[in-house]
Order: sequence, then structure tokens, then C-alpha cells
Amino acid sequence: MKIDLNGNFSLIKENYLFSEVAKKVKAFSAENPSVKVIRMGIGDVTLPLSPVVVSALKKASEEMGVKDTFRGYPPEYGYDFLREAVRARYAERGVALSVDEIFVSDGAKSDLGNIVDIFGSTDALIPDPVYPVYLDSNILHGSRVSFVNGTKENGFLPTPDGVAKKPYVIYICSPNNPTGAVYDKDGLKRWVSFALDTGSLIIFDSAYEAFIYGDEPHSIFEIEGAEDCAIEICSLSKTAGFTGTRCGWTIIKEGLSSCGVNLAKLWKRRQATKFNGVSYPVQRAAEAALSEEGMRACRKNIGYYLNNAKTIAALLEKKGIFFTGGVSSPYIWLECPRKMGSWEFFDYLLKNANVVGTPGEGFGEMGKGYFRLTAFSSEEDTVEAVARLDKLL
Amino acid sequence: MKIDLNGNFSLIKENYLFSEVAKKVKAFSAENPSVKVIRMGIGDVTLPLSPVVVSALKKASEEMGVKDTFRGYPPEYGYDFLREAVRARYAERGVALSVDEIFVSDGAKSDLGNIVDIFGSTDALIPDPVYPVYLDSNILHGSRVSFVNGTKENGFLPTPDGVAKKPYVIYICSPNNPTGAVYDKDGLKRWVSFALDTGSLIIFDSAYEAFIYGDEPHSIFEIEGAEDCAIEICSLSKTAGFTGTRCGWTIIKEGLSSCGVNLAKLWKRRQATKFNGVSYPVQRAAEAALSEEGMRACRKNIGYYLNNAKTIAALLEKKGIFFTGGVSSPYIWLECPRKMGSWEFFDYLLKNANVVGTPGEGFGEMGKGYFRLTAFSSEEDTVEAVARLDKLL
Repeated sequence: MKIDLNGNFSLIKENYLFSEVAKKVKAFSAENPSVKVIRMGIGDVTLPLSPVVVSALKKASEEMGVKDTFRGYPPEYGYDFLREAVRARYAERGVALSVDEIFVSDGAKSDLGNIVDIFGSTDALIPDPVYPVYLDSNILHGSRVSFVNGTKENGFLPTPDGVAKKPYVIYICSPNNPTGAVYDKDGLKRWVSFALDTGSLIIFDSAYEAFIYGDEPHSIFEIEGAEDCAIEICSLSKTAGFTGTRCGWTIIKEGLSSCGVNLAKLWKRRQATKFNGVSYPVQRAAEAALSEEGMRACRKNIGYYLNNAKTIAALLEKKGIFFTGGVSSPYIWLECPRKMGSWEFFDYLLKNANVVGTPGEGFGEMGKGYFRLTAFSSEEDTVEAVARLDKLL
Repeated sequence: MKIDLNGNFSLIKENYLFSEVAKKVKAFSAENPSVKVIRMGIGDVTLPLSPVVVSALKKASEEMGVKDTFRGYPPEYGYDFLREAVRARYAERGVALSVDEIFVSDGAKSDLGNIVDIFGSTDALIPDPVYPVYLDSNILHGSRVSFVNGTKENGFLPTPDGVAKKPYVIYICSPNNPTGAVYDKDGLKRWVSFALDTGSLIIFDSAYEAFIYGDEPHSIFEIEGAEDCAIEICSLSKTAGFTGTRCGWTIIKEGLSSCGVNLAKLWKRRQATKFNGVSYPVQRAAEAALSEEGMRACRKNIGYYLNNAKTIAALLEKKGIFFTGGVSSPYIWLECPRKMGSWEFFDYLLKNANVVGTPGEGFGEMGKGYFRLTAFSSEEDTVEAVARLDKLL
């Protein structure tokens, strides 16, 4: 065959991180079959869907089996019942949205990856370390990429200081994956000011917003001016345990435009061309998750994970190890003790505490010498892992 | 804001077709409230999911509510249980696939739209008339587009005769939407030969394959050589009534490569970056649809629609009106009588028979003077519509 392919695929790294982790754990377990390995590297929820969500899924499934209640093609931007539920949730925090500004999808990753379709020649400004989708989707798109670094000094919350002033597509993830660091209102205000000054667009990934228990903003639209410079992408994956159920949304304010072109109009056309809506039972499940009863269940599960995070954070504090996250986030991002490298510390923990985490360098250059632990294990395993780390570190 | 946007959005037509149809029907019904309008324009299934599919959806929903059976992130390319069910279905027709060549998605439209992500500088060869997604996604991508025309003379089955020889991405939909025309083995062989000769890639859309009741190929991989020049995209939307449930798949043979680059590798990387897999309950539903009991139910529903198609086709034959489809397809594509234009005939039918169809020009230039009727209404409505048309035409 002689068709031309997208050469940018050769520029993105093969992500061997999790397969390399799995390989090492497998080898260790094979050599030490009687040892209980505790997995603190997992970035996926483990608690089941709440009863109200399961009921909604089942009820909608039954409707699909009856001619009078059967539903064919869903609306491309989501059923109004779900868009309304999302609107109401934002309204509770004082963010006023119209239903038409909410675009339902099968998850934040799809939207974060596909949003490049509406961009032309793009300068992307991406934090390091960060969720790899921003970088990879921009490399595939052919964007010019600059980084803003997370460091021990800025608490892994990069600022616009020193960034060359031009119009960028700026990616912000708060609470951050992998560092667990959360921007406060002032931190986000600085980014919104920078975006407004430079004609930039902020893509705000709020997938972990439900873990915030302080007064940090849950939505970029809590910041004045964001309606003129930001798109927000969120998901029920971590809020309601929907990683395997698949539902999220993108918010584009009606007035948002660049050089006179309306961004919502482009996204609508993109979705109408390359997407056909979210499964009806899944949309009913999402509606249930956002109901009062659903949110009560979500908060309970998130409380469980946050308690695990607290247990881990308390140990690191006791040991005097620098870390971010552990509060308002399921992630704990720590500096490897004794200047060990990420992988060196991985091997050290696996061998001596039989605990698995994720080497920080998998999330960017600035992750070298750092390590991610997560709060998604069971309480018992978390307590046991912390006891082992207490002896070792 | 001053970021650069994808200027190709200004090159795709706003698709007013179905909203224009809806507007005209609404106005007519407002003026004639007592008249029963019969909708034969609908391109969506109307029969509900079969009991075995509903059971599978409900069972999987329950599993998601129990810690021990809860599932988090699905595998990006689909659960093996579903990939295996797809493999088995192809094996029944003699098409040998490995499970690794099957990529599960939320539907054919997503894959047909997103596949351009793996292409570079592209010459697209697109039939006219056809499903608008091929054209729109290629315009957004910036492809150079050529058309091959469906005509009365070729029975709306364009051939490669006279097409300039260069490497294209060639789109083929068989059975075709909107014409209902189905390529036989010889017709597809000619396209496969052309693709092999010119170094082209065929994107074969087999969404309507389950409607084939003759000996035409259901899959492009029934044609020798297709494994070296074709990707197939299919869906359960029309096979199993999944338009509102959302599940499909793309098949890329392991050996498929262009200028030494493996296409499956690019698609895998694309999906791993911009997609996060299909909802677990939906995948279990798809597995059930592909089971023996599920396929029996599918065939029954398809038989119902095909019987409607036959009823419409019989009238057109009796009236001596040229048409394609009506056999092995839910679509009937007819030449408007007395050289009426598509919209003229639309108005004529609505006013005089109170029947709604779709003007052919909504599917391309070559659709001018043609009209699409569909078999997705109820049997009673189809019989009544045909009786009205019998009097009128």
C-alpha cells in the first residue's frame, strides 16, 4: 500500500510504563509466590457502583426491551435529562450554565483527545508531569509543544511566570494527576489572567474535582473571566466510579470564540460528524449518579479513598518525606528518599516492602526522582502497606 | 481569544436535511391536525432489544454494583469475550480473524470519523450519493476529495472504471446507505484489484451486512487480496437494534501496512490515546446479541423490516418506477416520477399521500431527482403508506 500515514505517530513515545510495572511485579511474584504484594500503583477505582446507579441502569435496560419505551439514536450532545442534571450540579456551586453549553460524551479521555480536531496550527502549553493524553494528542495533531514545569519549589503547581507571551492552548489538571496538587483560587486566577492577556485557551481537566474537600475551585468557571478563555472537561469516572461505565462531559460557553469563530459551533459539528452519542442506559446511570441520593453515595466512596490517602500522607509527614497530594486527591506524589531514581525506588519498595507504586518519570521529565502512590486500594491493604513502609523508610 | 482554529470547518456544509424535513412536516401537521402523517424517512430502528440482550445488560449492571464483580477501565480495544464473539461470527462465513485484529468501539460512526487520524496527506475517493460522514471527516482532515458517481446506469454501484490511478483512501458502503444497492462478489473484486494496483486503502462500511439475504459478500475479507488493502468497520446498530445502545468494531488485519508502516499499530495507539473503551454492560449486551439466541432474534427483526421493504418495492415495480435497494437492505432509493426534483417530490408526497421520505440530494449531487424511503416503520404503517402511494402515483 502506498497511502500517506500520519508521521507524527513516530514522534510519540510507546508508553511502556504500566506494562513494565506489570512485568516486574509478575517476575517478583513468580520468584516469591508466598509473598503478599500490595498494589498502590492502581489509578482506577475499586468500589462498586452505588445501588441507585445500578437501579437506573437496569430500569433503562428494561425500557430498551419494550417497543413503547425503546430508544434509538441518542441526541449527539446528550439527553436533556442528563444535561439538566449536570447543569444543576454546577449551579449548586454558583456556576451558571445553560443546558446547551454541556456536551455529554463517553468520557473525559475521549474529549481531551478529540478536542484537537477543532484547532488549527497550535502552540500547546502542557504541565510536566501530567496525564499523558494532553501531550500525545497534541503531538499527533502536529502542535508545537512547550512545557511548564512542576517542581518541589512550586509544589508541583506551575505558574505562568516566565512563559513567553503568545496564544497557547493551555492544559490544566486540578486536582492533578499524578501529583495530587490542587490549585487554589489565586493560582487559577493567574492562569486565567495569563490566558486573557495572551489570547490563549485553557483546557481545564476537572476529572478529580469531587475529591476537593477544601475551598479550592471545583470548576474553572468559578474564576471570573474563564467564560472568555476556557473549556472544561469532566467525567464521572472518579466521582462516581464510572471508569467501566463511561460517561463524561465538555463545557463550552456559548460566547467563547477565537478570532470571531465560535468554538461551541465547531465542537458541535465535530461531535455530530464523528460521534453518535452515549448509550441510553449509561446516560440514565449518570443522571442517577448526579441525583441527591447518588451524590451521597459518591461522597461516601470518595471519603473512603480520602481516608486511605490521609493514612499514607501521615506516614510521609512522620518520615519527613516531601510530597504533594494526599488531601483533596486520591494521589500521593513523593520525592524518592535518599535521592533514589524513580525505578530504583520502585524496585526497592517491591523487594523490601512488597508494595507496588508508579515511577514518576512515566508522567514526564520532571517526574524523575518522584513516585506516585494511590488511595484506591482497600483500607486494610493501605494500612498494611503503610505499616511496612513505616518499618522500611 | 487568538488561537488558530481548524479552518476546514468552514468548508463542510451545514446539514439542514433532517431539520428541514422536520420543519416541513411540523408545518403541515399544524395546518392539517386531523391527518395521519406516515414517516418513511426514518433511518433508525424501531423494534426493541431482544430479551437475551436485555438480560445481559441487566446482569452486567448488577455485577457493577458488587465489589467482587465490579469492573473498572475496560480494555481499550474491547473485552476478549466480545472480540471472541465477533471473531466467531466472521468465522461462520469463512473469514478467519484473530481476536487481536478486532477493535471494539462505541459505534461505526466514531470509527469512520476518527480513522482519518491515522492518515497523512490523503486523496479520498468517495461515492456519491453516500452517508455524509466519509466526506465531512475527510474535509475536516484536509483531504483532497474525488467522487465516484452512482447513477441509474450503474445501478448506484460505482466502479473504478475511469478513475485516475493513484493511491486513495476509498470508501465503500455495501449494502449502501442511502441507495440500498449491494455489491456482488465481482463488483467488490474490481475494487480490491483497483486498490491493490494503485496502492490504495479501502474503508469498507458493512453496517447493513445483516440485511443481505442473497449471496453477496457480508465482509470485504470474503474477497481475496482484501487483507492487503482493506479495513472493515461494522456495527450492531442495524444488526441488533443497537442505535441507542452503541457498539461497533473495526477490523485491521495484522499484516496491513503502507510504505512499511503497520496500520493496526497506529490505530491501537490512536485508540489508546483518545478513547477509553466501551461500557462493560454494553459489551456484555453486544456479546449476547452475537450469541446463537441473539442472532435468531436479530434475524427475526431484520425479516420484519425486509418484509416492509418488499412491500414498498412491489409497488414501485408495479408502477414501473426505477429504484435500487428494497432487497437485502432497509432502504428503497427511487427516481422521482415525472422528473420531479427531490424536494418537489417530498412536498408532493407529504401533501397528497401524507407520507414523509428523504430527498436524495441530502446525500450528494447525484441524489438530485431521487428519494429515499425506509423500511423501519411498522408493518401496518408501511402497508397503509403503500396503499396511499398506489392511489397517488
